[in-house]
Amino acid sequence: MTAAGTTDGVGAMTRAAVLVEALPYIERWHDRVVVVKYGGNALAGAAPGEADGDALASFAADIVLMRSVGIRPVVVHGGGPQIGSLLARLGRASRFVDGLRVTDAETLDAVRMVLLGQVNPDLVAAINVRGPVAVGLSGADGRLLVTRPVDPELGFVGDVAEVNSDVLEHLLGRRFVPVVATVGVDEAGQAHNINADTAAGAVAEALRASKLIYLTDVEGIRQDPDDPSSLVPTLSADELDGLIASGVVTSGMVPKAVSCLRAIRNGVGQAHILDGRIPHALLLEIFTDEGIGTMVTLGGGPAR
Amino acid sequence: MTAAGTTDGVGAMTRAAVLVEALPYIERWHDRVVVVKYGGNALAGAAPGEADGDALASFAADIVLMRSVGIRPVVVHGGGPQIGSLLARLGRASRFVDGLRVTDAETLDAVRMVLLGQVNPDLVAAINVRGPVAVGLSGADGRLLVTRPVDPELGFVGDVAEVNSDVLEHLLGRRFVPVVATVGVDEAGQAHNINADTAAGAVAEALRASKLIYLTDVEGIRQDPDDPSSLVPTLSADELDGLIASGVVTSGMVPKAVSCLRAIRNGVGQAHILDGRIPHALLLEIFTDEGIGTMVTLGGGPAR
Amino acid sequence: MTAAGTTDGVGAMTRAAVLVEALPYIERWHDRVVVVKYGGNALAGAAPGEADGDALASFAADIVLMRSVGIRPVVVHGGGPQIGSLLARLGRASRFVDGLRVTDAETLDAVRMVLLGQVNPDLVAAINVRGPVAVGLSGADGRLLVTRPVDPELGFVGDVAEVNSDVLEHLLGRRFVPVVATVGVDEAGQAHNINADTAAGAVAEALRASKLIYLTDVEGIRQDPDDPSSLVPTLSADELDGLIASGVVTSGMVPKAVSCLRAIRNGVGQAHILDGRIPHALLLEIFTDEGIGTMVTLGGGPAR
Amino acid sequence: MTAAGTTDGVGAMTRAAVLVEALPYIERWHDRVVVVKYGGNALAGAAPGEADGDALASFAADIVLMRSVGIRPVVVHGGGPQIGSLLARLGRASRFVDGLRVTDAETLDAVRMVLLGQVNPDLVAAINVRGPVAVGLSGADGRLLVTRPVDPELGFVGDVAEVNSDVLEHLLGRRFVPVVATVGVDEAGQAHNINADTAAGAVAEALRASKLIYLTDVEGIRQDPDDPSSLVPTLSADELDGLIASGVVTSGMVPKAVSCLRAIRNGVGQAHILDGRIPHALLLEIFTDEGIGTMVTLGGGPAR
Amino acid sequence: MTAAGTTDGVGAMTRAAVLVEALPYIERWHDRVVVVKYGGNALAGAAPGEADGDALASFAADIVLMRSVGIRPVVVHGGGPQIGSLLARLGRASRFVDGLRVTDAETLDAVRMVLLGQVNPDLVAAINVRGPVAVGLSGADGRLLVTRPVDPELGFVGDVAEVNSDVLEHLLGRRFVPVVATVGVDEAGQAHNINADTAAGAVAEALRASKLIYLTDVEGIRQDPDDPSSLVPTLSADELDGLIASGVVTSGMVPKAVSCLRAIRNGVGQAHILDGRIPHALLLEIFTDEGIGTMVTLGGGPAR
Amino acid sequence: MTAAGTTDGVGAMTRAAVLVEALPYIERWHDRVVVVKYGGNALAGAAPGEADGDALASFAADIVLMRSVGIRPVVVHGGGPQIGSLLARLGRASRFVDGLRVTDAETLDAVRMVLLGQVNPDLVAAINVRGPVAVGLSGADGRLLVTRPVDPELGFVGDVAEVNSDVLEHLLGRRFVPVVATVGVDEAGQAHNINADTAAGAVAEALRASKLIYLTDVEGIRQDPDDPSSLVPTLSADELDGLIASGVVTSGMVPKAVSCLRAIRNGVGQAHILDGRIPHALLLEIFTDEGIGTMVTLGGGPAR
Repeated sequence: MTAAGTTDGVGAMTRAAVLVEALPYIERWHDRVVVVKYGGNALAGAAPGEADGDALASFAADIVLMRSVGIRPVVVHGGGPQIGSLLARLGRASRFVDGLRVTDAETLDAVRMVLLGQVNPDLVAAINVRGPVAVGLSGADGRLLVTRPVDPELGFVGDVAEVNSDVLEHLLGRRFVPVVATVGVDEAGQAHNINADTAAGAVAEALRASKLIYLTDVEGIRQDPDDPSSLVPTLSADELDGLIASGVVTSGMVPKAVSCLRAIRNGVGQAHILDGRIPHALLLEIFTDEGIGTMVTLGGGPAR
Repeated sequence: MTAAGTTDGVGAMTRAAVLVEALPYIERWHDRVVVVKYGGNALAGAAPGEADGDALASFAADIVLMRSVGIRPVVVHGGGPQIGSLLARLGRASRFVDGLRVTDAETLDAVRMVLLGQVNPDLVAAINVRGPVAVGLSGADGRLLVTRPVDPELGFVGDVAEVNSDVLEHLLGRRFVPVVATVGVDEAGQAHNINADTAAGAVAEALRASKLIYLTDVEGIRQDPDDPSSLVPTLSADELDGLIASGVVTSGMVPKAVSCLRAIRNGVGQAHILDGRIPHALLLEIFTDEGIGTMVTLGGGPAR
Repeated sequence: MTAAGTTDGVGAMTRAAVLVEALPYIERWHDRVVVVKYGGNALAGAAPGEADGDALASFAADIVLMRSVGIRPVVVHGGGPQIGSLLARLGRASRFVDGLRVTDAETLDAVRMVLLGQVNPDLVAAINVRGPVAVGLSGADGRLLVTRPVDPELGFVGDVAEVNSDVLEHLLGRRFVPVVATVGVDEAGQAHNINADTAAGAVAEALRASKLIYLTDVEGIRQDPDDPSSLVPTLSADELDGLIASGVVTSGMVPKAVSCLRAIRNGVGQAHILDGRIPHALLLEIFTDEGIGTMVTLGGGPAR
Repeated sequence: MTAAGTTDGVGAMTRAAVLVEALPYIERWHDRVVVVKYGGNALAGAAPGEADGDALASFAADIVLMRSVGIRPVVVHGGGPQIGSLLARLGRASRFVDGLRVTDAETLDAVRMVLLGQVNPDLVAAINVRGPVAVGLSGADGRLLVTRPVDPELGFVGDVAEVNSDVLEHLLGRRFVPVVATVGVDEAGQAHNINADTAAGAVAEALRASKLIYLTDVEGIRQDPDDPSSLVPTLSADELDGLIASGVVTSGMVPKAVSCLRAIRNGVGQAHILDGRIPHALLLEIFTDEGIGTMVTLGGGPAR
Repeated sequence: MTAAGTTDGVGAMTRAAVLVEALPYIERWHDRVVVVKYGGNALAGAAPGEADGDALASFAADIVLMRSVGIRPVVVHGGGPQIGSLLARLGRASRFVDGLRVTDAETLDAVRMVLLGQVNPDLVAAINVRGPVAVGLSGADGRLLVTRPVDPELGFVGDVAEVNSDVLEHLLGRRFVPVVATVGVDEAGQAHNINADTAAGAVAEALRASKLIYLTDVEGIRQDPDDPSSLVPTLSADELDGLIASGVVTSGMVPKAVSCLRAIRNGVGQAHILDGRIPHALLLEIFTDEGIGTMVTLGGGPAR
Repeated sequence: MTAAGTTDGVGAMTRAAVLVEALPYIERWHDRVVVVKYGGNALAGAAPGEADGDALASFAADIVLMRSVGIRPVVVHGGGPQIGSLLARLGRASRFVDGLRVTDAETLDAVRMVLLGQVNPDLVAAINVRGPVAVGLSGADGRLLVTRPVDPELGFVGDVAEVNSDVLEHLLGRRFVPVVATVGVDEAGQAHNINADTAAGAVAEALRASKLIYLTDVEGIRQDPDDPSSLVPTLSADELDGLIASGVVTSGMVPKAVSCLRAIRNGVGQAHILDGRIPHALLLEIFTDEGIGTMVTLGGGPAR
């Protein structure tokens, strides 16, 4: 289906072994909601040009395969790099405070145009090449994401105050794949920019998702940030608290880690941080015994 | 609810008379699909500034009231003036051939950014101030509008080749109000710009809508284009053919008139051309015996 | 539809204003049960002859319109004047104790023949001229109204001991309009005469109706019984208690007021006393912001 | 349950034999509609006074037992003797033309008062002593029986032009037992008197009943009207035609015979003429191999 | 249907009386589950040869008639004599400890072959001659009967540890008649022999059956075991405790009595011990006021 | 899960490739019925002792995995070797005519005891170790397999005259796995022995199965019976006709081949002949692009 490996030369015993391992997960995850945060960073490690397309196609294939075996995936996305790029073309600087983009009215226009008018329909189109299943949404649709202001200094930046998941649930109930751009609206209908990691966690909570998966450009959480061999495969919520407190989890990983913790503690079964650059990372996580990346559960432990 | 008139001083006899006239239409239109084309031109007659907001609020109120009494409205919109305005800001000229915008890759980017990232969410937000009912869609969502190229010279301009109305029907079945931006996708997933009048007709056909309403900035079709008193209240399809052939219907009205004819001849019950500048034009059309504007039906005649 | 007013000469702004006001009530009252007590007195103010027919036709039109927009009306009726008239023809006197008719076996025969054999089928036929929706019932049908004796001196006069609302609910579920004559049966199947005001309240309670409306020949409850300008538009239950205790509410209004209080305190949303002589009184009460007559709610206040 | 026989002294073998014979009929008649015409004549052979009550109680018991085993009985009744009696009390003569009562406005009032205000509620009450299952109806309810005039000379006497069986079907669907008084309405809502035998046949046809049973005061159709031993147990439609043509079937039996023929030829499975004076005649007919009285089927023959 | 008695010569009054008595039981037992234990002993009193066939045919007829009137019968059976007979043919002795068959591996093979390969399909076939309704099951099917070992000395003899009644309920829901052979499986899937009386009680409990009926070769429980006239028609659970404690209930009746008590105390409505040699014993028990045999209920008393 | 291969050392790329290939088959076969003929011969190639258990466990695992991903498997089995073995123990010879076992009454007893009392419950128990899903059936249950006699000389040997698949369909609808022993009954309820290959085809036809799979002890159909490298992976029905006519398909393979042809020509999608000795043969056939063994379809060709 995609170029990432063929089964030529794979023996019957190996095939049977992979199948015997994978099939029980079909039943386990049937009808379950899996929220996947797909970010610009997931693509960052890919080579320029066609490679991006390959990564997007592999991701789209995984989403369609997940759906085809009865899983209910929801895609949540931001688009930081692409917003920066439009602002640059318009001759405007990007300014950040504590990692959040300062968003005045014109910046907000750019955010909306990029996320709703470019990234979202591109993701939808990539998935729909394989069948008419993806439906793009923003936080304004059915007032999916209602915001409250974060800080006057930041302008139109909002926190998620409420998730109206009705429209998501109806689409999932009909086997559509919602693709959500993280622009919300406040009570008065005013648009606000929302951090996509936080929004993904809030959506997963509202849907009581079985899994929340962050596709990033690192292979997971490391015990020693500089040692690739120190990947931590499973963590309890308390252990992750400790890693954040001790500074082992840093910078861009912090909002993801915090969102994982909050989601896990509010009813989401499992949260994952995976390397989105690995072809078919989603399938490997979901359908193999060891999975990949780092999994956080309430109690931790090796049970997947 | 909106500033357009109050009932102070309206006597009981008058109120009762309006109600006795209006209530049977509730039953008649219950659960029926009504497709409303809302265009930039509908707003053109409004005074600048806050007046635009008033017109949008009155339109949004009508849509919500229609839905509240069991009608299933679908809003279809373009955004010509707003596209032109963004292109101007980007220093690019708008070029038209036979009324269709020549659309190269950069123009297409602007079209998508304006329709999906600005006009659509603004309409959705205006409706959703009154409750979380509107859901924005583009032609890429669920491959709602599949296009075929019109003419290589026009670039990414498409005709509607196929309407996949599943996502519309599921949303309508759950009492959501779909708001559709007329950007489609071809078989390969490539976006294309579509004429909004044509798209509205195609959507109405696919849904076998009971009514298709074009909100414009004229009061309907005139027997004598220069004589406001010559408004034609009802037309048969054949009569409208005649008015087009004889040149009575001209310029911007032609695509609307042609789309009306095609829809009527493919199962849509009634098509209307109304003056969107009249406050609550939709309610007056639907809930009064005479209606307003011009109505086209297969057989014509005064029966509404 | 009926002679009570036309919309000729009513301007678009006025029509729109009445509609904008009325339409939200359609949604609010959809599927709600409204019990309407229709009494001989409601017709008492009408001119003799054809005028009676007009009042009945206007009432029937309102019931059919209410049903057509999704309301579930139930009509409850007595027929005091008509019973008196048959007894007179048979040369028998009517005798009352505390406003209740002394009912021996022969009087009971007359009551049954008038209510079940004359008033009830006349009401049913008046409604059914507009469609086959009304179904006449007595308290014997499905043992709808089970009675206990009031006082041996009164003979076959009963209080409502139990309401078996099954048959009403099944008919309402199929969108029929039940028309109930207030003759009940005791445990042994013996028929009893029941006060119609009381029976209407008991039916409303059993159905947990949203509204209980008494159509009478006064415009509502007055602060000063002699001053028509002293109509009280809204009352809390406690305020109505006070008006009864202080003697402001008197004579024929007392059983209605007491039934209103009991119904409100047992789960009925609102109780109304209206002037049934006003054409389309029911529509004006239900579909306008101010309503007409006197409304009683648990907490009172202007909110309708 | 009723005095008509006990099982004391009936041996186990006999009981078992009756049960083995009867039980298969439970399945056969489950959910089937059985229309029973119950007339004043059915009671005519009973002794005066309490005996009438016994016959009514036995009839009511059979109806309730039929319903309890899943049959859907519908009772249709007239009330000739009782009408004559009221008219006599009012000092008015009964006049008949060809067996049909000449019905002016005052006679019609008397018919309605007797059938709807006396006979119908008495039947309903007799059945409902055993549970709240019977619901009285007239031909006005849901416009169940729509009439056309028979002959100007006869006044308000109507033939059945149309049966709107909706209300019957909904009540049957909820396991109620409809009891229908044969007063109909014409298109304008004007009441008309209908022959009860004819009405029963029309109702059976409209419901595509499995059985139509006339309870009379003779034991069935006799080959020789004067010879009680010449009872004909089964007849084909053609054979019954012959008996009518040859004058074997005479006078009061003719309308029943004609209605049987019409019903059988329009989809009713079996029509029966039974002696209603036999205690539990309905049970004996339905649950024994030989049945009682005369059965008419399309093809005739001994198969029951 | 079977040779056990005809209705020839049974008068109408008697037939009516039996029907009036029997019909209310149809409604009472409709959709209720009745578990019938059918044992080798039930046949023991029958004459050899064809007589056995008669008894089986009468039993099969009763089961089909019960089902035809809406009862949901479940048949549970053992097959002691037949097992003994096969073992004898194979030259192996039967050995019992406390009434339980010592069951080594070879004996278990014989038990399975007899119960599953002979008795069960014979019962199924006897019932299915009248229609394809019976379905044979063993305790292995859907792990219906999960066992725990009774005593190492007894070998593969198990107690019922758990009943998975899913498969029974699904078959009953589709109006099939399950016929259960009492061979169970332990957690590891190893087959075990189960006492059929005990298994019937456990099945009745799991299904919350309305009745549990043991068909035996005695007419019920006697106050004086040697006096046939001392049959006890009804017993409370406490009274039966007393009869067991005092030794009135002895030997083969003890497991039945204990199973009755346990079932009654765990939600089964009534337990019965009947003489299966009486033709149509099941019908006489279920459809007559006095029933036959001994009935045990929680509170005892004559109410059936 | 079973010892047949592990995924240790299988790289992520390989795993992903197997998954990407396998997952689409999940959707394709979801809710589809797959009939698997499991014969004594399938086990014949396995090593004696524990190896038999391994093959049975692998087969049971495959059935449970198929079911867990939404496939509806039906197992059909015979048991020739086991029957022979019991007959030998009983000192009786097996006699065959044209490959069919001559079956007198005693042989039939042995057939029933072995198939229903030994092979069937063993298969059921092997599957149910993994969950209570398998339910054993014989052709007598619900008269699943109705037979007609083949030849008087053969005794109680029957052909399938009719399949009553109700009980199968109800069990499949509840996600049970029916396991069918091929003993049928004739119209009179007399048991008959049926060839298991033929019965499997008849069951597949009756269920309009998507696949019919014969598990055998050869790897499929060979172009040259003596050359293992001449396996034919796909055949059209006509090609298989040719191979039978030309004698390439011989002896024991003929009844399977003929049953395949008949099933394919009566609505079964695909028929397969596989080597049941390969661990997880069923999974490899269903979830890999090439499949294994020989597939017969109406049109043939490589498309699987």
